[in-house]
Amino acid sequence: MMQQRALVSDHTTYRTLAYRSKEPFLRIKMEEVLAPLREAVRKQGDLVYQLKEQGASEPELSKAVAELKARKKILEAKELALQPKDDTVDRAKLEDTLKRRFFYDQAFAIYGGVSGLYDFGPVGCALKNNILQVWRQHFIQEEQILEIDCTMLTPEPVLKTSGHVDKFADYMVKDAKTGECYRADHLLKAHLKNLISDEKCSAEKVTEMEDVITQMDNYTQQELADLFVKYNVKSPSTGNDLTPPISFNLMFQTSIGPGGNTPGYLRPETAQGMFLNFKRLLEFNQGKLPFGAAQIGNSFRNEISPRSGLIRVREFTMAEIEHFVDPNDKVHPKFHNVADLEILLFSSKAQTSGQSAKIMRLGDAVEQGVINNSVLGYFIGRIYLYLIKVGLSKDKVRFRQHMENEMAHYACDCWDAESKTSYGWIEIVGCADRSCYDLSCHSRATRVPLVAEKPLKEPKVVNVIQFEPNKGAIGTAFKKDAKWVLEYLAVCDECYISDQEKLLNENGEFSFQAEGKTLRLTKDMVSVKRFQKNLHVEEIVPNVIEPSFGIGRIMYSIFEHSFHTRQGDEQRMYFSFPAIVAPYKCSILPLSPNQEFKPFVQQLSEAMTKNSVSHKVDDSSGSIGRRYARSDEIGVAFGVTVDFDTVNKTPHTATLRDRDSMRQIRAEVTELPGMVRDLANGSLTWAEVESKYPIFEGQESSKKE
Amino acid sequence: MMQQRALVSDHTTYRTLAYRSKEPFLRIKMEEVLAPLREAVRKQGDLVYQLKEQGASEPELSKAVAELKARKKILEAKELALQPKDDTVDRAKLEDTLKRRFFYDQAFAIYGGVSGLYDFGPVGCALKNNILQVWRQHFIQEEQILEIDCTMLTPEPVLKTSGHVDKFADYMVKDAKTGECYRADHLLKAHLKNLISDEKCSAEKVTEMEDVITQMDNYTQQELADLFVKYNVKSPSTGNDLTPPISFNLMFQTSIGPGGNTPGYLRPETAQGMFLNFKRLLEFNQGKLPFGAAQIGNSFRNEISPRSGLIRVREFTMAEIEHFVDPNDKVHPKFHNVADLEILLFSSKAQTSGQSAKIMRLGDAVEQGVINNSVLGYFIGRIYLYLIKVGLSKDKVRFRQHMENEMAHYACDCWDAESKTSYGWIEIVGCADRSCYDLSCHSRATRVPLVAEKPLKEPKVVNVIQFEPNKGAIGTAFKKDAKWVLEYLAVCDECYISDQEKLLNENGEFSFQAEGKTLRLTKDMVSVKRFQKNLHVEEIVPNVIEPSFGIGRIMYSIFEHSFHTRQGDEQRMYFSFPAIVAPYKCSILPLSPNQEFKPFVQQLSEAMTKNSVSHKVDDSSGSIGRRYARSDEIGVAFGVTVDFDTVNKTPHTATLRDRDSMRQIRAEVTELPGMVRDLANGSLTWAEVESKYPIFEGQESSKKE
Repeated sequence: MMQQRALVSDHTTYRTLAYRSKEPFLRIKMEEVLAPLREAVRKQGDLVYQLKEQGASEPELSKAVAELKARKKILEAKELALQPKDDTVDRAKLEDTLKRRFFYDQAFAIYGGVSGLYDFGPVGCALKNNILQVWRQHFIQEEQILEIDCTMLTPEPVLKTSGHVDKFADYMVKDAKTGECYRADHLLKAHLKNLISDEKCSAEKVTEMEDVITQMDNYTQQELADLFVKYNVKSPSTGNDLTPPISFNLMFQTSIGPGGNTPGYLRPETAQGMFLNFKRLLEFNQGKLPFGAAQIGNSFRNEISPRSGLIRVREFTMAEIEHFVDPNDKVHPKFHNVADLEILLFSSKAQTSGQSAKIMRLGDAVEQGVINNSVLGYFIGRIYLYLIKVGLSKDKVRFRQHMENEMAHYACDCWDAESKTSYGWIEIVGCADRSCYDLSCHSRATRVPLVAEKPLKEPKVVNVIQFEPNKGAIGTAFKKDAKWVLEYLAVCDECYISDQEKLLNENGEFSFQAEGKTLRLTKDMVSVKRFQKNLHVEEIVPNVIEPSFGIGRIMYSIFEHSFHTRQGDEQRMYFSFPAIVAPYKCSILPLSPNQEFKPFVQQLSEAMTKNSVSHKVDDSSGSIGRRYARSDEIGVAFGVTVDFDTVNKTPHTATLRDRDSMRQIRAEVTELPGMVRDLANGSLTWAEVESKYPIFEGQESSKKE
Repeated sequence: MMQQRALVSDHTTYRTLAYRSKEPFLRIKMEEVLAPLREAVRKQGDLVYQLKEQGASEPELSKAVAELKARKKILEAKELALQPKDDTVDRAKLEDTLKRRFFYDQAFAIYGGVSGLYDFGPVGCALKNNILQVWRQHFIQEEQILEIDCTMLTPEPVLKTSGHVDKFADYMVKDAKTGECYRADHLLKAHLKNLISDEKCSAEKVTEMEDVITQMDNYTQQELADLFVKYNVKSPSTGNDLTPPISFNLMFQTSIGPGGNTPGYLRPETAQGMFLNFKRLLEFNQGKLPFGAAQIGNSFRNEISPRSGLIRVREFTMAEIEHFVDPNDKVHPKFHNVADLEILLFSSKAQTSGQSAKIMRLGDAVEQGVINNSVLGYFIGRIYLYLIKVGLSKDKVRFRQHMENEMAHYACDCWDAESKTSYGWIEIVGCADRSCYDLSCHSRATRVPLVAEKPLKEPKVVNVIQFEPNKGAIGTAFKKDAKWVLEYLAVCDECYISDQEKLLNENGEFSFQAEGKTLRLTKDMVSVKRFQKNLHVEEIVPNVIEPSFGIGRIMYSIFEHSFHTRQGDEQRMYFSFPAIVAPYKCSILPLSPNQEFKPFVQQLSEAMTKNSVSHKVDDSSGSIGRRYARSDEIGVAFGVTVDFDTVNKTPHTATLRDRDSMRQIRAEVTELPGMVRDLANGSLTWAEVESKYPIFEGQESSKKE
């Protein structure tokens, strides 16, 4: 059965994006241009696989991988460049609108501003709140997820365990005289591009430098330093010498408490809070797996040179879920609800063979093993539905699988939701199966077992792997530290034990870090014991599936995907935000400042407040068309206008206008607030409204009595 | 008219809390004990007023004020101590429940914890979200306030202007050997109390030391240092010497960007974001006053020794409103909506004359000038309504006015909402009229005018006060800085100019800080010009009314005010949270793990999700009573039980239980989710439900077929 479905789907549900294009001829032309680039990727992808199979050396392999990534990048850039122009947003115009209507703007501007920090104004803030509110409904309420709220201040040992203290860094160089800082890779790349653009540069030199740019992500600190010397890179603003590249940790450091001896950081992600509270959450869930925990909140990254507006900032809001699951039971009971979704998937295999992303039925992707398991598949489906719900365009969202070499070594599958913007495809949500990595790390670092217990209906014989410590030898070697070394050995999970066993066999020892020390354990201190055990209760280190949302990036994508110009009027822009996330649901506009309109405006406003419909009264003196244009520009979903018919006729009626179609109906003033509420929460559609109420054309502006 | 009402209200609406007491006899007894303490406060209050009138010296006055505060403290402590015991919560039991059910708990506990940092678990987080959601409805939607969302990272110059860099500090002493830190006043006080408790201590000494404790808030750094020497205070944990007291700034410092030359802090309050964005917000409001801006978010204070649980923490959520208003028009058009509220007010006058807080009609308080203006009065009323809505007890909320000497010199009136808890009366909301102070400071520091323009219907002749710079002299004195000195002089407001004019006349000069420098302006550089001007547009530096909410403290107050024990069963606790803020609105409980119940549980759960009713299914194996007890303990508002009648009879019905009364009704399964939704949002009351549906007693647990 499964076989057959897989076969069928190969022919029916796989479709490339190409077949959706409105202009098949253009598409064929495009593919002609892209064909050699695709071929170049495929060849390099094959080479990487070959090298892996042959067990090639690490440097050889990573060079080939870097080349593969570079070819992929070239292919993708070309694909984007060949897009029809009407598909891309006018970013200057968009940014002007966002700034002018104070969706967001640079923070501390009257003090000169700080790069990478933005303040959200009333409409940006309302949009963001709504995006988060929908997130809570869509994920937390729907899945009964346990939301928690942890501190941003984080003491150092926690982030030492998570790896952030040692590895969360970029290379930077400084102007030797002014101390100005540059991100090393960005600066070197700009410098080389500058050299390449020089007409006098030889073809050979060009190839060499292009090669360096290609390999940029791959250099060690020393290699980078050598390249800065070789190409004689100077400070771009002063021409001064530069210091050699140094590693700069991207976390904001501070000191907790007055003593100065508790270094801390602002968290670089919200995830750690869920891991640290795992035991309490498991208890809250009455000891049962699976369960999800979530957190919404700010995180901080001290970027060396922030740019690209909301895409790369120093303080940002994240929403993260950690779904804890029994590793032997990675099947989601509700997967069938999303199995029929057709989603643009860009699998690792497609990437390494130069193919495009393909639309695929989610159920097929899991069945065929393209997506590792149905829990991961379920979340991919739910993420997709969420993104569409808050206003991303279906054809500008794809899920890209991490290639094996991109993936953290502990992750067993990882997909990024990407959104197509004027900056190219950008990651907006990560969705990783992180196996048991995080819990195991914190467990070893604290010697607190972070496990769940599963009572077995019938006792079961299982294979157990444990460390077998030689207490005497450990006591002699570590004295008063011996106690926690033993605790440490007791909480290690099977995976970790197997890895250390290899080291014990090969090198006669392994080492680990804890309590700020590096300790070496030798064969005489510890061995690995394997035995069978009759279990009544199974101890499980849960695996974790982690969907991680960058709210600012999602918001920026919504801006790009919903920004339009009215046909025939270049100067009239509007945002087609879905009503559910629109900053205001409704405008209330009296036709003119005439006093007669006031009581109706007030009546409507009070009734909308009662119905929790966020709205904005605009009783300024502009023409009604001008005020609708202002309302559209901040994406208000609907508009009610009070005109002379409202005042003069009974029952009192007013007009209701749909922002996107600009069509209007007329209905009683008392009905409108409830109608807008239902339209805004999705229980009523505009089509239904049009079918029930008379279409209205042209405001009654003349009937002054 | 006003005169008459004031007279009437003196006799009818002033009522002390005493008359509400259920036990008038006890109350009379209490007052006998309190009388001499009240008299002591009154005498000292009179003395302070006398000294002020006589123009007494600063040290003399501040000593008298400190004594007044101390006597007030003694009076209040006695008042609280005399409260009937059944009115106070069992804090140990409460805290155990909060921890056990993971409302909140110490952060980073598996790493040993960090004091002053707490994580909110699922129920705490849901409660907090609901408190904030109600806040948004009650303030932002109702008043059409402009909510913004600014960064927590703040560059130093902003907080230099606001005064936090120089003045937001406590004194601390360190153990000279271990470096352990103590808050100087806390330590000295504990040390003296210890000495006082020694039986061998002479009466004279006791009086002297009690006097020191009384004056504690008033000492300078040098005086504190002398007292530490005089009383030979040592480190309490080691007995080592202590360093002299040093000033410790309570902000968390960090460095923004890689260069290390942009010092920054985590904001200590959210207010600054509204001031810095004033111009954008005014523009968003189409240039019109009044308008409110608001922000919800985290702030940070690096307390030297955090304690008292959620009351004094290092990272906390605030919600702040800045209501910008024309200083000549401090009248709120909606004040009549709150004028009839009767609120416990503790005026400055009552405090300095040893009286109790009194219940007063808000309208009278404004008319009689007890509250400075109706804008401030309006917010006091709205704050009160909010606090009651989210679950504070009416008789445990009061508004205490700052005494003149407590108030920042720029504030013209300030009231704190206080809540009565087991820690005494604690401040939970501040509500200050801050005049034009904040905008003026930022305006001078940045030389950006932060003003609103008010077009006048008819031109108006006004008196203008301006600085008249001598450009030549300023140019000579300040060279290239002269330009911004002139800009500085141009943005100063009239208040500030008058103050500086006094200095110019008295000392021949005044000085100011800007751009990191202190500049001295002498009489030959600047004079003050007064003239009349015919204005068509008036320039206004808005005043600001600032209601500022400590969300953690409000939450803790809700815990204390809503924590109860079931009559007759000491072991069954419950939280009587109002449904609107309850962490979950409903529990769904199958009578037993019987499979037959499952479809109904699922049907109810899905329907509640659709209705956005947050709920919790508890299908664990405990008895129904036990599971209701668990549900009550986290304050779930309602409970639905699926029993055998649900399964066996048509139409299928289930029971609905009200948490506080524990009464139950029976209704159709299809009706229940909508009913709970309406109960939770307040559009339906439990009394209405009881009147429509049959009361149900005793679950159908026996009818197994």
